[in-house]
Order: sequence, then C-alpha cells, then structure tokens
Amino acid sequence: MPTLQRQDGLALDAADPLAPLREQFTLPDGVIYLDGNSLGALPRATAARVQTVLTEEWGEGLIRSWNTAGWIDLPRRVGNKIARLVGAAPDELVVTDSTSINLYKVLSAALSIARADAPQRRVIVSERENFPTDLYMAQSLAAQHGMQLELVEQGQALGRLHDDVAVLLLTQVNYRSGALYDMAAVTAAAHAAGALTVWDLAHSAGAVPVDLNGAQADFAIGCGYKYLNGGPGAPAFVWVHARHVNRVEQPLSGWHGHAAPFVFTRDYQPAQGIARYLCGTSTLLSLAALDCGVDTLLAAEPMGGMQALRRKSVALSDLFIRLVHEQLSAYPLTFATPLDAARRGSQVSLTFDGDGYAVMQALIARRVIGDFRAGDKTRGDADLLRFGFTPLYLRYVDVFDAVQTLRDVLDSGVWREARFARKGAVT
Amino acid sequence: MPTLQRQDGLALDAADPLAPLREQFTLPDGVIYLDGNSLGALPRATAARVQTVLTEEWGEGLIRSWNTAGWIDLPRRVGNKIARLVGAAPDELVVTDSTSINLYKVLSAALSIARADAPQRRVIVSERENFPTDLYMAQSLAAQHGMQLELVEQGQALGRLHDDVAVLLLTQVNYRSGALYDMAAVTAAAHAAGALTVWDLAHSAGAVPVDLNGAQADFAIGCGYKYLNGGPGAPAFVWVHARHVNRVEQPLSGWHGHAAPFVFTRDYQPAQGIARYLCGTSTLLSLAALDCGVDTLLAAEPMGGMQALRRKSVALSDLFIRLVHEQLSAYPLTFATPLDAARRGSQVSLTFDGDGYAVMQALIARRVIGDFRAGDKTRGDADLLRFGFTPLYLRYVDVFDAVQTLRDVLDSGVWREARFARKGAVT
Repeated sequence: MPTLQRQDGLALDAADPLAPLREQFTLPDGVIYLDGNSLGALPRATAARVQTVLTEEWGEGLIRSWNTAGWIDLPRRVGNKIARLVGAAPDELVVTDSTSINLYKVLSAALSIARADAPQRRVIVSERENFPTDLYMAQSLAAQHGMQLELVEQGQALGRLHDDVAVLLLTQVNYRSGALYDMAAVTAAAHAAGALTVWDLAHSAGAVPVDLNGAQADFAIGCGYKYLNGGPGAPAFVWVHARHVNRVEQPLSGWHGHAAPFVFTRDYQPAQGIARYLCGTSTLLSLAALDCGVDTLLAAEPMGGMQALRRKSVALSDLFIRLVHEQLSAYPLTFATPLDAARRGSQVSLTFDGDGYAVMQALIARRVIGDFRAGDKTRGDADLLRFGFTPLYLRYVDVFDAVQTLRDVLDSGVWREARFARKGAVT
Repeated sequence: MPTLQRQDGLALDAADPLAPLREQFTLPDGVIYLDGNSLGALPRATAARVQTVLTEEWGEGLIRSWNTAGWIDLPRRVGNKIARLVGAAPDELVVTDSTSINLYKVLSAALSIARADAPQRRVIVSERENFPTDLYMAQSLAAQHGMQLELVEQGQALGRLHDDVAVLLLTQVNYRSGALYDMAAVTAAAHAAGALTVWDLAHSAGAVPVDLNGAQADFAIGCGYKYLNGGPGAPAFVWVHARHVNRVEQPLSGWHGHAAPFVFTRDYQPAQGIARYLCGTSTLLSLAALDCGVDTLLAAEPMGGMQALRRKSVALSDLFIRLVHEQLSAYPLTFATPLDAARRGSQVSLTFDGDGYAVMQALIARRVIGDFRAGDKTRGDADLLRFGFTPLYLRYVDVFDAVQTLRDVLDSGVWREARFARKGAVT
C-alpha cells in the first residue's frame, strides 16, 4: 500500500458529496478543530437567530412572545428534530435542562418501574469508565432508593446481568476511549436478563446512527453542545419509550411538565407523554441556538443523513489511524480506541508515554485543537490525547495537516523538555 | 387632595434621580410595559454581549473559552453580583439551572437537616396560594421523604408552626396578590418554633430590598428572568446560609458541583460551599444575558441601590392605586394587593367583576401590557389583572397613561360585549 500524501486528501475532499456542509459553520482561520466531541462549532445561522430572539422576540414582543413567537412549544419542536437523528418517533423526545438532570429524571423513573415490576432487583450496573456525572447521579439515586450501584470494567456489563439487576446504565460511546456499543444487541441482552436500559447518547447523538425504537431501548438522554452544535451549555434532551412513558412520574415536577401548564392548579398532574419530563422554564436563548445546531445535521438528510455522515466519520478516523501508523510509529503512541470502526464512535484517543499535556498544548498553539484527558492515577489509567472527527465540518486534508502538525510537535521534542521542566517544577 | 393630572407625572419624572436608568433598556415604541414581574425588559447591553459570546468566545475561542473567556467561573461571578441585591455574602450564591430545580435541591437539603436534627418533625408547611411549581416540587419531595405537605391560607402559616413542622416554604412576594412577607420576622418566628425556612425570591429579588443574612434565613432560590432582566428562561439562583451549606449534600450531584470538577474522579465529593449546588454544564448564552440584566440593577448602586429602587417602586404603585381610586371607582374593580405599601412587592393586582381577560386583551391591543391570571374556580379564586411596576424602566407618566388607557377600555364597554360573546360561545 503506497504511503498517502496530502494531495490524496485534497482529492478525497473534491470528491466528497458532504463537503458543502462545512459552509454551514464559521470556523477560525487556520484552525483544525478536532474537539467537536466536547463543544461543537458555531453554525453560521446561530448568531442571527439568537439576535432575532433577543431583539424581536424578547425586546419587542416581550411577554407576548410566549405565544406569538412559539416559545412555549420550542422544547417540543427542537426535540422533534433531534428525534429524527436518533430513531425516535415524533413527540417522543423533548429538549430540557442539562444532561445530568435529565439522567436523574430517567434513572428515577427506571428505578420506579423496576421496583413495581421486580422489587427483588436492587442493583444498578454501570461501568467504572462511564462519564463521572452519570455515576454521581446514579450514586445519589441508589442511596435514595436503598439500592446498590455496581461498577464493572468497560465491556463487562453483560456478564454482570444477574437476576438482582434492575437497570443497566451505559453511555453508548465512551467519552475517553470512544468505544461504541451496539445498542440493539446490548438492550436485547439486558431485557433477556430482566433489566431496563438507560442510554446516555452524549457522544453518539449526531455522531453515529442511533435507532432508539429499533433497539427497543427504555430510556435515553443526550447532550446539546457536542455533536449537535448547540453552543456552550446548550440544553439537553430526554426520550422514554412509549411503553414506559406514562407509567411513572419523574421527581422533578415543575410547572412545564404539568398536564395543564397554564392553568396553575395546585396539585401536580403530569402531562401525558414525554412532556412530563419538562420541568421549569426553558432557557430560550440557548434553546434557539440549539435549534440552529440541530439544523446543521438535518441538512445532511438529502445526502443520506446520519448514515452518510457516519461513513465520512469512519473514513476520517480510519485515515487518521492509518497516518499515525505510517508517520508516527517512532513515538510512544498507542491507540486507546478500537481499531475496528464498527466498535468506535467519532473520535480517536491515543495514549502517549510522555508528557501528553505538553503535546496537546503545543498542538493547540499550532492551531490543531484536540483535548487532553488526565487518567485517574489511583487506578493506573493512562492520560489520553483525544481527537474528534466531525464529518460536518472536517475535511480529509485537515486530517493530513493535523497528523503533520502532531509529527512536528513530536519531532520538536517539546514534550521531553516540558516533561522534564514540569517534573522539575513539581519537585 | 386635588386630583392628579398627567403633568404631575411629567414633573415627577423630571425630578426623578433614577430616571436615567431607563436608558439602559430597549423598549418597544409606545408600549407601557407593566409585566416585568413575569419577564423583564431587554437591556441595551445584552445583544452585544451575547454576540460576543457567540462569535468571539464560542466561534473563535471554541473549547478554549472555558478557560480563556472565564466560562467556568461565570455562575459564581453572576452569583456574586446577585448576592449584592439580596444581602448574601460573596461566594454564598450561584446561578444555575431553573428556579424549580433549585427549589428541589434546597428543599431536599432542608429536609435532610430536619431529619438529622428533629426526626419527629414530618411536615412541610406552605400556602395554598404559593406558586404552583413550588408546591409540585414539595409534593414530590414530601412523598419521597415520607413526609406531609400541609397548605394553609395566605398569611396563616405562622399559626401552623407546631412541633411537627420541619420546613416552612414561602414565596416572599406572592405571584398573584403581590403580598410581601417580612422575611426577618417570619424567619425568626419559624426558628422560634423549631422550623427551617425556604424562601422563594422569584418576585422579590431585584424588586424589594432583601437581606438574607440579616434575616438569618436558611435557604433561598430565585428567578433570573423577572426583575433581574435576564431574558426568557434565564437561569436561576440558589443561596444557602453558611451554617448549613456544608452540612448536607443536595441530590442532583452533577460534575460541576464536585469538589474537583475537572479531575473526573468516579466518586462524588461535593464542593465546599454553595458550589455544591451547581450540577451540569451552565447554559452560557442565557447566563451571559443574565449577567447584563443584573448589571442594570447594580447601576442603581451609586443612587442608593435597592433602597432607592424600592422607594420609586412604592411611589409608582401608590400612584397607580390612587389614580384607580380617583378615576375608576365607577367600575367593579377591587384591589387584591395590600394597600399598605410595606406589605406589598412591586406589583398591584386587581380583581374585576366582569370579563377580565377581555379587558387585558384590549389593554394589550392599546400597548399597555399587564397580565391576566385566571383564578382556580374550584376554590372560588377570583381572576386577576396584574400590573408590575419596575422602577428601572417605568416613568410616572406611564402610570398616568396606563390608567387612562384602562379607563378608555372600561368606558368602551368592550368587556361587557366580550363577556356576553364568550358566554354565548361557551353555551
């Protein structure tokens, strides 16, 4: 196989039917942004939309805009757009609150259902490597419900599905390693073992095709500011399968989740359907920005939608992996991400036996933005260099240039000096 | 006492030292906005600030802005500004989530403290007329903790403070009637009776002087989009007295409330102080807008701050009451708000023995924006016309013009026809 050259990247871009989608974003000149898995880029439409909300809807319309500008209905409308990306039916998904808080709602509901259907099941199973906030919420709820949270190593959860397990709580794409679960297969195994599933889609919604109803999943939540490009702290989303949604209430019973939110009756009556997962007043500016972010993904629908985006995402990350193999084999880099594309999301993580923090800082100084995640040293976890490959706004040539820059940084030896300097500074 | 004329209003405005504060806002031409108690007006600074967050901080800075633009610290910084308005010390108050969700956090914490200190106390006392979402959250938590929520009529709570009461949950200014509680006196009575207090400041923060530490209050929450002018769905705030804050955790244990939020350890360790009431990622666009809204109140500090704003608020609402008395006595209007200014917030509510909805619609059509609140007919509650008097952007002449417009609407008889038409339509 001949060594790939930068001109091959330019040729791939010229032939890429998704290339025009990049024009939807404003990206800083000369920056290669490989951190869309943490914070998506700014869509061109967002600034004008938010200005309209500010000056016309709020400034001119004032309180009237709850009706005239459709504010009251926006969580449902944006939710219906996200539903198209994750295999949910219309009116099954709403945008509200943060990912953390939505996890609290759905895990509470899942535990209520488990208690009713199988009171002897007292264990929530999750992974030690799951996103920490998910584990914090599960700890809080386990204590509240008199249950146990048991954490297993990544990939070991199915082996722990004994008859004491009420809920399996997983993030579909791991935020550190990028490893991807087959939602349908895992859900089927959980159901066969009598457990409910709660899926965190923070790193999969907008990144890989998700089919919640096809997988017969039970509960799901997801993030608005990563692959959905909703902006810093964009509100999150929540979905519950139709077979569960009206069975139980969730504990954060605010006015917007009421059956008659404007009647202001004194007894809480949850709305039918997913609207009962709404709580207080939605953050309208942030919600409008998220609406624009989701539109950047829906713009791919005529070109094949999430399936087409996924193909490009895999092509980008495969290319990155190949170039790292070809060009950087002299350096102590190891892939922490599964090399089998079917088992990873839209990111590639590398461990580096050296000062990875210094490498990432040097990369960022050269305008290649990935991120660095320190490992938990008490558990022997490695530090990670993470690189996200967002097919909406990344080009193949960017992958060539990013690897070349990484090579320049490694060749410069800055990481050896920095490591030494940092060690010296700490002593 | 001679009848007041519109020119008296102009004279009052000319002599008003707070009059320049109005220039901080963009208000629609010809609109008299008497609904700042539901949604504050748009500050002039907000659009530019939000654009900066969008295009420079997000668009250019991307993920780096968590550090370089100070995003991570913004909930604390805006909290410290609000602290100056409500008698809280620096770093005692943070901005996060919604009012509803913050109520869940503080009421959970209050119940945990009560359970530890006085396990025989099993009752939460609140008012039937409290804001419904507060009651919904209290219902949810009472059920979760095996406690009872008891609702009394407005003003009757102190008489119910028997030795079974754990927590007294009150909104300082009632959203319907505008009645104002003396926080220090009520808190002292609650403490004397062995109960903790949870104060909802939704209609008092930025509307009346509040002194949380002076009153020795226990827990408080408040709203960002009413008198704080933070925009639709602005995030809310939460405060806990120093004597309680590190005693107990709150159940919504997200990453941002962790003692070391970026270390991503797997066990939840709450931060010291009010930071443990943070949860997930803050909605940055909405939070930046709130920052500008709070600044419009702090701009009054050189002119006497909340005390001076309160004097003008009382002068405006006293004037409204006097003009309604003088000019509208022929119509079936009744004040639902205490006429004693010391016992009301920054709004005046009227009951109307006729089609109040039609009156308010006609007023809004003539560009005088108040709001209509239907009463709970099953309890015999009256419908209300609510008028908020926000001293930051209302002029005395606006009060004259608003009452004149209300008189025109009533003189036109539209409410009689509308009432008849609506009755006809229902039959």
